[in-house]
Amino acid sequence: MSEELNKTELAEAGGKTRLYVTADLGEGVAVTLDEGQTHYLLHVLRARAGNLISLFNGRDGEWLAEIAEAGKRGVTATCRKQTAGQHGTPDIWLAFAPVKKTPSDYLVQKAVELGVSVLQPVFTRRTIVTRINEERMAANAVEAAEQSERLTVPEIRAGVSFDKLLASWPTERRLLFCDEGGDAKAMTQAARESRGGPTGILTGPEGGFDPAERAAVRALPFVVPVSLGPRILRADTAALAALAIWQSIAGDWS
Amino acid sequence: MSEELNKTELAEAGGKTRLYVTADLGEGVAVTLDEGQTHYLLHVLRARAGNLISLFNGRDGEWLAEIAEAGKRGVTATCRKQTAGQHGTPDIWLAFAPVKKTPSDYLVQKAVELGVSVLQPVFTRRTIVTRINEERMAANAVEAAEQSERLTVPEIRAGVSFDKLLASWPTERRLLFCDEGGDAKAMTQAARESRGGPTGILTGPEGGFDPAERAAVRALPFVVPVSLGPRILRADTAALAALAIWQSIAGDWS
Repeated sequence: MSEELNKTELAEAGGKTRLYVTADLGEGVAVTLDEGQTHYLLHVLRARAGNLISLFNGRDGEWLAEIAEAGKRGVTATCRKQTAGQHGTPDIWLAFAPVKKTPSDYLVQKAVELGVSVLQPVFTRRTIVTRINEERMAANAVEAAEQSERLTVPEIRAGVSFDKLLASWPTERRLLFCDEGGDAKAMTQAARESRGGPTGILTGPEGGFDPAERAAVRALPFVVPVSLGPRILRADTAALAALAIWQSIAGDWS
Repeated sequence: MSEELNKTELAEAGGKTRLYVTADLGEGVAVTLDEGQTHYLLHVLRARAGNLISLFNGRDGEWLAEIAEAGKRGVTATCRKQTAGQHGTPDIWLAFAPVKKTPSDYLVQKAVELGVSVLQPVFTRRTIVTRINEERMAANAVEAAEQSERLTVPEIRAGVSFDKLLASWPTERRLLFCDEGGDAKAMTQAARESRGGPTGILTGPEGGFDPAERAAVRALPFVVPVSLGPRILRADTAALAALAIWQSIAGDWS
């Protein structure tokens, strides 16, 4: 690796392969990559010793690392230079009723790109999906974080019932309830009012919340019902639209 | 059909099956449904004479219609009552570089829910997809319009080259260019400034626009480069985020 490369050139060199690791990162630190990453590097990218990749772990920024060993015993890469300092992602949670497989994969991927910090599946009365694959969700989240150049991976929480979600919700965290009707606030206004404070977004399943759920959530002091316009949005569209608008007004898009 | 049903009850009765037709709609008008709709009504819903459905055509509002005939010769429904007056969808175009099959289907579906008025595929230098299936796009758009309770179906245009798009773009229509970098305006600000005027959104392929394309589009007087935040968004995420933010600020969401 040439010592003459500047920071931008270094970032470009490593930028094409960007991997999330859990190990600490720092000048000269050697990182052993996991089985999936090893397979990807050896058999998809045909990487060899001396190639450059980028690593991040959600704590130590982004590092350009040089592959030191690439063989049957695995792949090890040595951190050479920090190419980005660590910075956070806005504190925005998404509590969502899981939908069928492909839309859920899609929702996780898009929510990560749009900068969600916590993904919380919630089972409502009309939620048809009864189990979620948290491992699959986590793998999707890592992949989306790698590709979107995030420096963090969102937390994937275990699924909870709707009642438990409301009972355990931190009362200082505003909850924007994506309601289908009634006297809801425009999302733009709710986002402006949530600036600088911890916030969550709650979206329902196909078919919406049932009347008892709607009444229960609307009665809570930290809940703000919000409207997403005159058309009926699918569950995943609603979650992504709400996140995009929130980021553009109260998040890190400006 | 009981004459005592009020407007809300009528809408609920017909609301579950909502079909787009091209024929004129009006009091007592009989509409013959097409082959796909006939199959759906007879073999999926097992509809029978006397059942109620909702019809819209993009011009005459929404009508509750009673199935008059349902048999081998097809399905005919008679308009009984207008349940919603016609109203438009905001004048917002989306010009997008098509991506692989599933994301394109997804993009069309979501863009229709989010209230796009024109969908314009555009082939850029880095667009890998070389053909688009306009029929499939149109069918997806109709289905999304039916399910999202739109009263219109967006226009699906034939794909054009990037150069042709720019050369034929109506100069009075502002074009929000979703750029990946440079001195772009925040999407919220660009949306505020586009209020009340004809507007389009332009998003690129996976891999973005090439430098020559970027220079060409930025040189045009009607183009406003906009930013969608610090993370790299996939092509379809960028299009949906831009549309959602535009609708919430300059469209019909407030």
